[in-house]
Amino acid sequence: MTHFVDLNADMGESFGAWTMGDDAALLEIVTSANVACGLHAGDWDVMAKTMQRAVAKGVGIGAHPGFPDLHGFGRQRMTLPLASLQNLVRYQVGAAQAMARAAGGTVRHLKLHGALANMASEDEAMATACYEAALSVAPEIIIMVLAGTAQQRAAQALSCPMACEIFADRAYNDDATLVDRSLPGAVIHDPAKAGQRMAQMVREGAILTESGKRIETRIDTICLHGDTPTAVSIAAEVRRALLENGVGLAQFPGAPL
Amino acid sequence: MTHFVDLNADMGESFGAWTMGDDAALLEIVTSANVACGLHAGDWDVMAKTMQRAVAKGVGIGAHPGFPDLHGFGRQRMTLPLASLQNLVRYQVGAAQAMARAAGGTVRHLKLHGALANMASEDEAMATACYEAALSVAPEIIIMVLAGTAQQRAAQALSCPMACEIFADRAYNDDATLVDRSLPGAVIHDPAKAGQRMAQMVREGAILTESGKRIETRIDTICLHGDTPTAVSIAAEVRRALLENGVGLAQFPGAPL
Amino acid sequence: MTHFVDLNADMGESFGAWTMGDDAALLEIVTSANVACGLHAGDWDVMAKTMQRAVAKGVGIGAHPGFPDLHGFGRQRMTLPLASLQNLVRYQVGAAQAMARAAGGTVRHLKLHGALANMASEDEAMATACYEAALSVAPEIIIMVLAGTAQQRAAQALSCPMACEIFADRAYNDDATLVDRSLPGAVIHDPAKAGQRMAQMVREGAILTESGKRIETRIDTICLHGDTPTAVSIAAEVRRALLENGVGLAQFPGAPL
Amino acid sequence: MTHFVDLNADMGESFGAWTMGDDAALLEIVTSANVACGLHAGDWDVMAKTMQRAVAKGVGIGAHPGFPDLHGFGRQRMTLPLASLQNLVRYQVGAAQAMARAAGGTVRHLKLHGALANMASEDEAMATACYEAALSVAPEIIIMVLAGTAQQRAAQALSCPMACEIFADRAYNDDATLVDRSLPGAVIHDPAKAGQRMAQMVREGAILTESGKRIETRIDTICLHGDTPTAVSIAAEVRRALLENGVGLAQFPGAPL
Repeated sequence: MTHFVDLNADMGESFGAWTMGDDAALLEIVTSANVACGLHAGDWDVMAKTMQRAVAKGVGIGAHPGFPDLHGFGRQRMTLPLASLQNLVRYQVGAAQAMARAAGGTVRHLKLHGALANMASEDEAMATACYEAALSVAPEIIIMVLAGTAQQRAAQALSCPMACEIFADRAYNDDATLVDRSLPGAVIHDPAKAGQRMAQMVREGAILTESGKRIETRIDTICLHGDTPTAVSIAAEVRRALLENGVGLAQFPGAPL
Repeated sequence: MTHFVDLNADMGESFGAWTMGDDAALLEIVTSANVACGLHAGDWDVMAKTMQRAVAKGVGIGAHPGFPDLHGFGRQRMTLPLASLQNLVRYQVGAAQAMARAAGGTVRHLKLHGALANMASEDEAMATACYEAALSVAPEIIIMVLAGTAQQRAAQALSCPMACEIFADRAYNDDATLVDRSLPGAVIHDPAKAGQRMAQMVREGAILTESGKRIETRIDTICLHGDTPTAVSIAAEVRRALLENGVGLAQFPGAPL
Repeated sequence: MTHFVDLNADMGESFGAWTMGDDAALLEIVTSANVACGLHAGDWDVMAKTMQRAVAKGVGIGAHPGFPDLHGFGRQRMTLPLASLQNLVRYQVGAAQAMARAAGGTVRHLKLHGALANMASEDEAMATACYEAALSVAPEIIIMVLAGTAQQRAAQALSCPMACEIFADRAYNDDATLVDRSLPGAVIHDPAKAGQRMAQMVREGAILTESGKRIETRIDTICLHGDTPTAVSIAAEVRRALLENGVGLAQFPGAPL
Repeated sequence: MTHFVDLNADMGESFGAWTMGDDAALLEIVTSANVACGLHAGDWDVMAKTMQRAVAKGVGIGAHPGFPDLHGFGRQRMTLPLASLQNLVRYQVGAAQAMARAAGGTVRHLKLHGALANMASEDEAMATACYEAALSVAPEIIIMVLAGTAQQRAAQALSCPMACEIFADRAYNDDATLVDRSLPGAVIHDPAKAGQRMAQMVREGAILTESGKRIETRIDTICLHGDTPTAVSIAAEVRRALLENGVGLAQFPGAPL
């Protein structure tokens, strides 16, 4: 195999008495885990358990900070001063670092969650603020970015370690944004098809859009979903299809660009 | 001066739109600040601001973790498995470490808050669990303990750096516990008297009880209160009385016992 | 059929993005639903949906208030002044009344949740405070009590409408308390056996204890559990066994004692 | 006196251990109190105390619901389905009704808080949804609206009891919106001037804008602020200036339009 890609999924999204997702099953599939940090989902116990399992499986641990919005699961956009945004990111990354250390691991990467991620993919200043904050408390952290968005531009301008991400199950527009979920074909429901498509994009080093356009980009990791009933089986099939199509699986490297 | 003592106070207890205490004024008086970590009080912005001020004033920063009980200000006793208690402490210490690092400082000490502190002062296993958790993520942290309680016994058994604390404004029973607040004389309202008393205890290396008994103990730091209207003026007077009575002020040392 | 009993279960315990239990299935089985009120579980949307379904199924709606402890699901004991406890109950009952009214129903009964229920079953003053608070905002509310506990004594002393509850799946001690979960036989795992046992107790008007003792008591409702994977199938079997053993199902009456 | 106006202020915004505003002093000044309902500020104890005081002073009680955003004090805009928005309003109004009933009063009016109010002043569908929700659980509630905004249009279309509100300390644009706070003259800092201006507007039945334009409108109530250090003295001076300028103070009537 000459091409490799990382598989990531959001994890550790249970809270108190409430369970979400099947983290144990997902950790058999992915190579990187984005662990919620307690403000939109997750708590100290969930973080500890998720990270212990990730360490046991050799899965890379990422801090997955979100807005302080437990009821809304971090999906409400919030308008905060950049300095507050930075405090918010630092707080969550720091908590994750401690939990990872106690689990025998380290926080290897950062991935923004929910509305925070969406806003940062549109607003480079916001992405930069978040990434600088993470780097200020974890200088070797790898910034996971949505390929082709303001997130990627921000990380590139910071010259920090970066991992570019595409989505396994979403169709792309010609400007590298995702096709709106309300449109037909926006979500790819056939895991075999999703896997073949991902393999092709990884081998070609490009996002292939609905119209047939080819957008060259680094592709370091593929986002799998874990929070729907069928998520785990889809994730497993994407993994299998990648391997069958000649793409190996490995954590993205941490070395600087 | 041949005797020195540290002065500590709880700080960073504002939350969102709500303000508590006059941290700026207290930071002119104390040598160590116990900073709330967001679960019973405080938030990322309050932590950042409090720690930046502490760094500017040369005041030592402590993590001040409590139970996850915002409405009750961490004053409700909670029964948690020791492993959960450890996760809870690690989470808060880690968050504090990140905020301190971004502020140009470090988390120098740990002090438990509210009901968590009360329970740990009675239950050595619980104190040990909390302190081990803090040390697992911050190996050089100094454990601040209530002198003469299970907290002190736990820290001694761990052979970790320790700072023994007495209260400026509370009378003591003969077993080194505090006189119940409901009893006459339990709270010392005269700051000058409190300061003289503290100076005497520091010089003698002993807690002096209501009955006149003398309990020898290390005394490294004196707890001042900051959350009442007159707290700042009382704290300032205790500080002045200590200096007038020949006791210098300095952060407790961090070297191992 | 000459004997009738109500079946109740806790419901509406989802929160935001997190789901708990299978309320739709349980509503096919029970005759009364205890709906969480947003402080330990549930939210405005969950309450609305649960109550709309209950109204559609003719299931009686109960307010199920708990301590303000979302992370701990209301299972942490809290020490509150009785006046605060009353405010806490009123707040939740009032919210439930509004949600029920909008759903085309009414709050018919009150059942305390978790640690609040446990404490009130041991402490008659606490039970009385909670019940008086509920009655002060919902004068016709029926108080559901754990048969044979301080809860029942409090409701009887208030001379308010009352429904006495026993547990389908728990063995009883000779003083009408539940056999500790850690002891063998404490939990009855065979639904058929549980159903037969319930039918016998309802027909005899008595709790039958592990030792064979017979404690005469009103029995108005049987508590089924809904929050475990097999809960719904167990609940359905208990229902069937009751019917097969000659006990009809009906909401407990609301008339005063 | 031939002209009368109501004075209202936000109140009950303390939470747990945190105090905000001087409600006791404000209740000597206003005729209507907008009481926070626990989701952005306030809690069951604060609501009880505030409403008991309001009843004692003969001050009208209003429910003051906001977004579920304690850390942000309800100032973050949230995008919610209208049905959720209605559940959110019903929950809070219901809780307020229960607390008011226990205090010997009733919820007389509704005023939206913070970002919820701002959004409803721009979006008539959103205002309508909120008001319908309140009316569905409190059919006689008086809807307090920002005069000249979508809030007023929504209430008028519903033909419900309505109270039109202007701000004591804010300059107005020619379209009845408030002059942006960042512009000079936007906030009127001189209470005497604010009081005279309010008296003139009430007598003329019109908003007088910065440019000198006159926008005819019902004026039923004037909003005073209570959350700044000088708020109470300003509020008292506005009250005095109104009385000196021939405007009496009285709760707005509850009769339908």
